Formats: sequence, structure tokens, C-alpha cells
Amino acid sequence: MTTDISPARADRLDAEDELAAFRERFVPIGDPGVVAYLDGNSLGRPLRATAERLRELVEHEWGGRLIRAWEERWLALPEELGDELGRVALGAAPGQTIVADSTSVCLYKTLRAAAALRPGRDEIVTDTANFPTDRFLVESVAAELGLTVRWAESEDVAAVAGPRTAVVTLSHVDYRTAAITDLAAVTRVVHEHGGLVVWDLCHSVGSLPVELDAAGADFAVGCTYKFLNAGPGAPAFLYANARHHAAFGQPVTGWMGAADTFGMAAEYVPAPGIRRALSGTPPVLGMVGVQEGVALLAEAGIGRVRAKAVALGRWVLALADAWLVPLGFTIASPRDDDRRGGHVTLRHPDAERLSHVLIEHGVLIDFRRPDGIRIGLSPLTTGFAEVRRAMDRIRELAG
Amino acid sequence: MTTDISPARADRLDAEDELAAFRERFVPIGDPGVVAYLDGNSLGRPLRATAERLRELVEHEWGGRLIRAWEERWLALPEELGDELGRVALGAAPGQTIVADSTSVCLYKTLRAAAALRPGRDEIVTDTANFPTDRFLVESVAAELGLTVRWAESEDVAAVAGPRTAVVTLSHVDYRTAAITDLAAVTRVVHEHGGLVVWDLCHSVGSLPVELDAAGADFAVGCTYKFLNAGPGAPAFLYANARHHAAFGQPVTGWMGAADTFGMAAEYVPAPGIRRALSGTPPVLGMVGVQEGVALLAEAGIGRVRAKAVALGRWVLALADAWLVPLGFTIASPRDDDRRGGHVTLRHPDAERLSHVLIEHGVLIDFRRPDGIRIGLSPLTTGFAEVRRAMDRIRELAG
Repeated sequence: MTTDISPARADRLDAEDELAAFRERFVPIGDPGVVAYLDGNSLGRPLRATAERLRELVEHEWGGRLIRAWEERWLALPEELGDELGRVALGAAPGQTIVADSTSVCLYKTLRAAAALRPGRDEIVTDTANFPTDRFLVESVAAELGLTVRWAESEDVAAVAGPRTAVVTLSHVDYRTAAITDLAAVTRVVHEHGGLVVWDLCHSVGSLPVELDAAGADFAVGCTYKFLNAGPGAPAFLYANARHHAAFGQPVTGWMGAADTFGMAAEYVPAPGIRRALSGTPPVLGMVGVQEGVALLAEAGIGRVRAKAVALGRWVLALADAWLVPLGFTIASPRDDDRRGGHVTLRHPDAERLSHVLIEHGVLIDFRRPDGIRIGLSPLTTGFAEVRRAMDRIRELAG
Repeated sequence: MTTDISPARADRLDAEDELAAFRERFVPIGDPGVVAYLDGNSLGRPLRATAERLRELVEHEWGGRLIRAWEERWLALPEELGDELGRVALGAAPGQTIVADSTSVCLYKTLRAAAALRPGRDEIVTDTANFPTDRFLVESVAAELGLTVRWAESEDVAAVAGPRTAVVTLSHVDYRTAAITDLAAVTRVVHEHGGLVVWDLCHSVGSLPVELDAAGADFAVGCTYKFLNAGPGAPAFLYANARHHAAFGQPVTGWMGAADTFGMAAEYVPAPGIRRALSGTPPVLGMVGVQEGVALLAEAGIGRVRAKAVALGRWVLALADAWLVPLGFTIASPRDDDRRGGHVTLRHPDAERLSHVLIEHGVLIDFRRPDGIRIGLSPLTTGFAEVRRAMDRIRELAG
């Protein structure tokens, strides 16, 4: 089966794209050297509204309301933003999600909390191909709690869980290949063995629908600076299913997680709900980008975003098959639309050098060791002609 | 001894104030209802430059350089900003300070790291009057490591340290009374017993000179949103003396603390220096305020800032003695200039209700249970006539 990969087809796809108008909501890329931005899965582009809201926040909320803004608005932000993110992107009912800290810190807290909920079990299971932070934290938490790490390959992770498994932690979408793990199925199997699952949603949130409540998920974390366009190092999120709240404990017991933050109590009494997952003072400036990114996603709808991500993925595959496979590239991502997330990874023996050349020539992809070139597809900003231009340039530079 | 507290004196003090011109560098308080802002020790006011730099960052660095900005600039920020903060405000040579996370998370990491450096010792010492987050974290870390918490009163904390003491943690300036603890003396005594000290500098950084290296300090943490004016929930900082780096370990082993962040290695190998204290992706937007706040402090000089803080403190005491002590207020802060930090706390049996009334009338102080009204003095923004107006209003409303 051949696909029409003509410039006219690209233009038609762009013309028919229901989300095309959303691109105008983003700050234009001022650099004329940029041919295509295909790294929104590492760092999403800024919304115009974020720049404007930051100015307002500094001048009016912070500069005008001063300390009063904490009571009036900011103290509630971790939960308010979490609820909105839960509704728009996570399939999570209110009261189970907070926006706070970094993904690393949120993952540390949830791994500790989950392990404490399964005393007597002595194994943490994860995937050898999981993102470094996730693997490192699994080892760190296992070492401090005296647990054994059981390593699985992506394909068999549900199968290695057993009666000794306290916690399984996995990435919903693989950062290298974009392969989607069946969140509901894995959760079910681990629950059958009596274990808990901590999901890393970094590469799925804002790119494909996540249905945490429907899957009966336990815990999840993720970042907001990829498909949610919240900005470099924007705060992360942490989801804990309401059924775990009463017993949820975490070790970074700062004042914001206490039942009465300003009570200056003698003893730490955790806040009753998801707020107990908080620690330090909420990072208000960083939350502005989260707020704007989530609001734009709400407007676009995760269903339309996913549909366009699938179409963009097919487009990359068609172009790669026609132009790049003959040059020695292979496709590392699943061809099955239902199993592929928001990027496509091409493998090439010379990927590292080639990536540098591509970036110098304005094709902003990213390289992942040992031999992957990731083509990130951000449905709110990425266009079909833009992708074609980039693939054409890869063909030229790799040829 | 009576002090001249006339309006003319206030004007003269403002006229002679070398730092008065710095007020123009801040966003004006747009709210005409604000009589005086005396809560910069909770939330410093925004600099005009911060609003401007945020716009630049969003539009040019993030929007223009996109993912390339990480390599070009952002990845180095935690250490670059840390070095500058260390030079300007902490008496710390380069390579020992990072800007990252929240104070709670930084304190958790340093308490864990310090305890691990003193195996075989089974006590953590802190002060019953320490800030809630600090006390809560001491208890949390003690519980997870099987240590005993030994509680001291502020006055005797050095005396209770002994051969079983692994770690002492204290606030340099007391959040309620502004009493300064002798950082060098306490560090020396604890070292004599073989223990380590973790200093909380939240209420001293940017307000008075701190000399960590000269004191042979071990670890320190603090926030940047008070006297450094970095913004609500701006990132915190963590100092670890270079002599501890080789053995420094912390449990939140995210990719940014690894020796080769993008190596995607099988095992966590900590970065060689202070970078091993990092975990997640640096919060770039929040760092803008830190950068501008530190730059302004560098321009003003911590010596001049401290001198004005002392003068403002004396001014508050003179006004309080004349007007408020007769109304039933007492002074909770040290009268000795050398022992008083950047705020003055007044006690009153009806402080809670009175604080609400004051805030409604535009005198922005803050209340600290059970009976404290804190008068925060931010030398870069606070004026002598402003303080007099506020104290006059307190007299009127409490009378």
C-alpha cells in the first residue's frame, strides 16, 4: 500500500485540520532558521496567553495583592489546577490530583507511599527500559526500604508481578519508542496479585486520553512541560486514588501537607485529602503555564488532540517508509495506531551525528541513545506540511 | 532615653537612606488601600525587572530557542544561580550551592544526607520553637532512620548536643521573634561533639550577612521569596560544604543529579559535585525572580541592607515603646541590634483579631500564633515614613 505523500496532500491535511487554528495561540517561533519544531514531546512551545498572564500575575496579583494573594488565590492552586488537569486530561474525579514539585519528587513520594501500603511484600517491579529517573528512584526507594527490585522487559511486566510484589511502576508511553502500555490491563493484573501500580504519565498526558479512575488506578505522576506546554521545569502532578487517601503517607512532611498549615502545631497531622501529598510552598509562577496549557487542552479536547496525533504519526510513517527506510532507517515505534503515542522514533546507526546536523539545519528533533531520532508530534502546534519539510530535510541530510 | 519619633525625623531618615532609590526598582503597589507593606519577610515585592525578564524568557529563550535553550543556558542555572547567591548572600565559595525544589524538599534531602554521614549516632536535635516544616521533617526523617529526636529550647540547643548527636538542625533567624542564633558558635560546638549542623536560612538570607564557609558550616537551606523578592513559591536553595560532597547521598535520585543526565545509564552514578543534590528538571520560570533578586542584592550590598534593617528595627522599637507598649503590647524581639534579624514581633493578647483589622485597613503585617504581630522590614523597599504610618495606624486601631 502506498500513501500519497505529495506536497498537495500535506496542504490538504493542513486545510482539513480542525486544530490548525490553535497554532495561532502560540508565541511564533522568531528564529527564521527553524524549519520544523518536532520536539514538543520534550518541551512544548509557549502560549501567548502564558506570557500575558505572567505579566498580570507579577504586576497585579503579586505586586498589587501582595501577601493577601496567598489566601485569596494561590493556596488553593495545587488542588484547583490538579482538579482541572484531572478532568481534562487524566480521567480523574476532583480531589485526587495536585500540581506540585518535580516529577522526580512526586515519583519518590508515590513510590514511598505505595510501598508503605503493602507491608510484608518485598518486591518493586519495573521495566529495564523505563526512563532513567524512574529506574533510579525505584532502586533508591528499594534500598532504603529493604526491598528487592525485580526487573521486567516492557512486554512481560504484568506477568512478573506476583504475591511478593508491593509496587509496580511503569511509564504509560515509552519515552524511546512511544509504545503505549495498556494501563487498565496492567493495573488489573497487578491488583489481582494484591499489588499497587504507580504510573508515569510524562509522555501521555495531553497527548492521549488517560482514564485513571475508570482503570481503578492507584497512583500516577507526570510532567506538564511536554504536551501541556507549561514551560521549562514547570511543576509536575501527582494523582492518588481517593481510596488510598486515609492511609497515604509520604516522608517530605512540609507545612503545606499539614491539616492546618498556619496552625504551627506541635505535631504533623496530615491534611485529610490529596493535600497531604504537598510539602513546600506552591510554585505559583510555574503554575501559570500549567493553567494556560490545561485551559487550551480543554478547549481543543483530548479526543481531537489524540485523533490528530494518530494522523501525524501515520504521516511520519508514510514519509519514512518512502524516503528514509531506503536510506537505512528503521521504525522503532509501533505501526499499530492504537499502540503508538505522540511521537515516532526512527533508528539509524549514525543517529547521534545526524541529529546534530539536523538541529544545525533547523530541524529540531531529539536524539535518544543509542540510536534513536524522536519525531515529536504536538497536535496543537505541529502541521502536516511542517512534518513533510522536516522529513524531506532528513532525507537530504542523511542521503 | 527617648527617641525623636516625629514625622520630620521619619522624613529625615528617608532622605538620608542610601537604599531609598532602590524602591523605584520595584513594581509600584497599585492598590491605593495599602498604607504600608510590612510583610516582605513572608513575600517580598516584585522587581520590575522580573516582569520584563519573564516576558523575554517566554518569547525569546523558550519561544525562540525552544529545546536548544536547555543546553545553551537552562541546564547550568541551578549551579550558576547557586554560585551567585552563595557569593552575594551566603559567604559560600562557588560549587557548593544549588537553586532547586522547595525548602521542604531541600531540608529533607540535607537531613537525610547529614544523618547518613554520621552512622552509629542515634539522635537528631532541634528546637521546640523551630518552624513547623523543620520540626515535622525532623520527626519524619528520625522515624524513617530509627533515630531519636532530642528537643531543645532555643537557648540551649548547642548544650544538648553530645556524642550521640548525628545532626542538629536550627533556624538561623527565629521566624517568630527574629532572634539570631550564633551560627558560627553553634556549628563549632556541634562539631566538637562530632555532629553536623543543617541550617535553615529562610529568615536570614538577603537580610543579614551569612558566612557559611567561614563558619565551617555543613549544610544549609532556605527560601528566596522573602528578602530576595523572588516570587511566590520561587525555588529554594541548598548548600553543602565541599568537604561533604564525595560522601553526600540523597534519596530523590532523579536524572538531573546523575553524572550523565542524558546518558540513560543503567545505574545511578551521582554527579561529582553539588549537582548530585538535584533531582528533577530545573524550574526555569521560577528562577527568573531568584536571578533578579540576587542581582539587586549584589548591587545594594548585604552590608548596607543589614545596616538599614537594624535602623528600621530600632525605629519600630522606638515607635512601639512610645505608642504601643502603653496599650498593652510587648516586644517579643531582641532589643540588642546584634541579636535581632529583619523583623520585629509585637505581642498582644488580641493579636489575631487586631491583625485582621489592620490588614483590612491596609497595614499589611502578618499574624503568627498565638499572639504575634510581625512587622517585616525589607530594606530594599521599606521606608521610615511608611513604618511610622503603619505604627500610627496600629496605635489608632488598637487604642
